[in-house]
Amino acid sequence: MSEHLQAQDVMKSYRLLGIGATTLIGAQYGDELDYMAAAWAGVCDYDKGYAVVAGSHFTRKLIEKSGRFIICYPTVGIVEQTMKLGTISMNDDKDKIKNSGAELFEAEGFSMPLVKGCAAWLEYEVIQDKHSDNPYEMFFGKCVRAMSDSRVYSNNHWNFDQAPDHLRTLHYVAGGHFFAIGKEIVLPQYEE
Amino acid sequence: MSEHLQAQDVMKSYRLLGIGATTLIGAQYGDELDYMAAAWAGVCDYDKGYAVVAGSHFTRKLIEKSGRFIICYPTVGIVEQTMKLGTISMNDDKDKIKNSGAELFEAEGFSMPLVKGCAAWLEYEVIQDKHSDNPYEMFFGKCVRAMSDSRVYSNNHWNFDQAPDHLRTLHYVAGGHFFAIGKEIVLPQYEE
Repeated sequence: MSEHLQAQDVMKSYRLLGIGATTLIGAQYGDELDYMAAAWAGVCDYDKGYAVVAGSHFTRKLIEKSGRFIICYPTVGIVEQTMKLGTISMNDDKDKIKNSGAELFEAEGFSMPLVKGCAAWLEYEVIQDKHSDNPYEMFFGKCVRAMSDSRVYSNNHWNFDQAPDHLRTLHYVAGGHFFAIGKEIVLPQYEE
Repeated sequence: MSEHLQAQDVMKSYRLLGIGATTLIGAQYGDELDYMAAAWAGVCDYDKGYAVVAGSHFTRKLIEKSGRFIICYPTVGIVEQTMKLGTISMNDDKDKIKNSGAELFEAEGFSMPLVKGCAAWLEYEVIQDKHSDNPYEMFFGKCVRAMSDSRVYSNNHWNFDQAPDHLRTLHYVAGGHFFAIGKEIVLPQYEE
C-alpha cells in the first residue's frame, strides 16, 4: 500500500475530517501504544481537531503523558479490527493491538506506528490551555502531519466512487452496525 | 411527512449525531430565524453536542441572544437547499431562508421552526461556563429535544437501506461535492 500514501496539507486537514467518519484514536508513550475506536472526534478549526477520550480509557493516559494523538479513518476493509479496537481495552489485555488483528506500519514524519488499511491519518499535538480541562474530556489538538490513501483522497478531495469499496470510510451506529460512506453527489454550479 | 416524525430520547442523541453527517445549524431570536450549513458540529457527550459557528455568521448572534440552537441532518432530497443555506449569508440577504428554497414547519416541543426534509432534528440549550468563550468559537449545548424521520431512524438506530434514497444523510467535502451515507455493514457477533 505504501505507493498510495500521500502527504496532505495540515491546513486542509478539516477536509479530511469533514465527512465525519468514525475514527481510531492512537497514542504512544514509551513502549506502550494504544488505538481505540471513537465516533466522538472531529474538526474544531482548519488545522485543529478534537477527540473525546474518557478518563477510563487507557489511551487517555498515553495522550496525557505524550502530548500527542493520532486520528485516523478506518475503512470497510478493517471493520472487524476497528470493532475490536473499540471493544477490547488495554486495561484488560496488554496484547490488545495484536489480538485485534490490526496491522501497524511506520510512516515518515509520524511519531508513532499507524494502523494499516485506513483512508487517512492525522497527527496532533495537544493544545494546553485553560480549555484542556473541560467537562467533556475533550482533547484539542493542532494537526502537525496529515496523510491519505491517494486512491480515496487526493488534491484535497475525497473520491470514493472510483476506488475499491473496501476503502470506504465507516460511520458507526451501535451494536456492531456501521454504514459505509456512499455515492458522491455533485452540484456542478458550485465546483471549484 | 408528519406521520413519520418520531420523538427520540435526548440521552441517546449521540447516536443520532454519531454517523457524522453535515448539519444545518438553526437559531431564532425574536422574528429573526437563520439556518446555516456546518460540517463542524457533533457529539461531546451522550446528551450534549457542539457546533463551531464563527463570529462572522449571522446565526452566531442569534444563538448568543437566544441561548438555543438546532442541529439537524439534511438529506439528499434537500441537497440544493442545504448548499444555498451554506453559501448565502443572512448578513447579505434577509430573505435567505425563502430564497434557499428550504421549507419550514413547526413541531411540538421545539422552540423554533424546523427545516423540512431532514433526517433528524435536535434542539440544544447553550451551556454557559468558562468554556463558552473558547478559541474555536464552539457552542456547547445540552440536548433538550430530539426527533427523527422514523423511516431512517427509529429504536435508536439508523436504517437507511430500507428507506428511499432521498432520505440519506449528506457528508460534505468541498466545492459542491457531497457523499450520501451508504450501505449498512453488520457484525452479527456484536448485535444488541
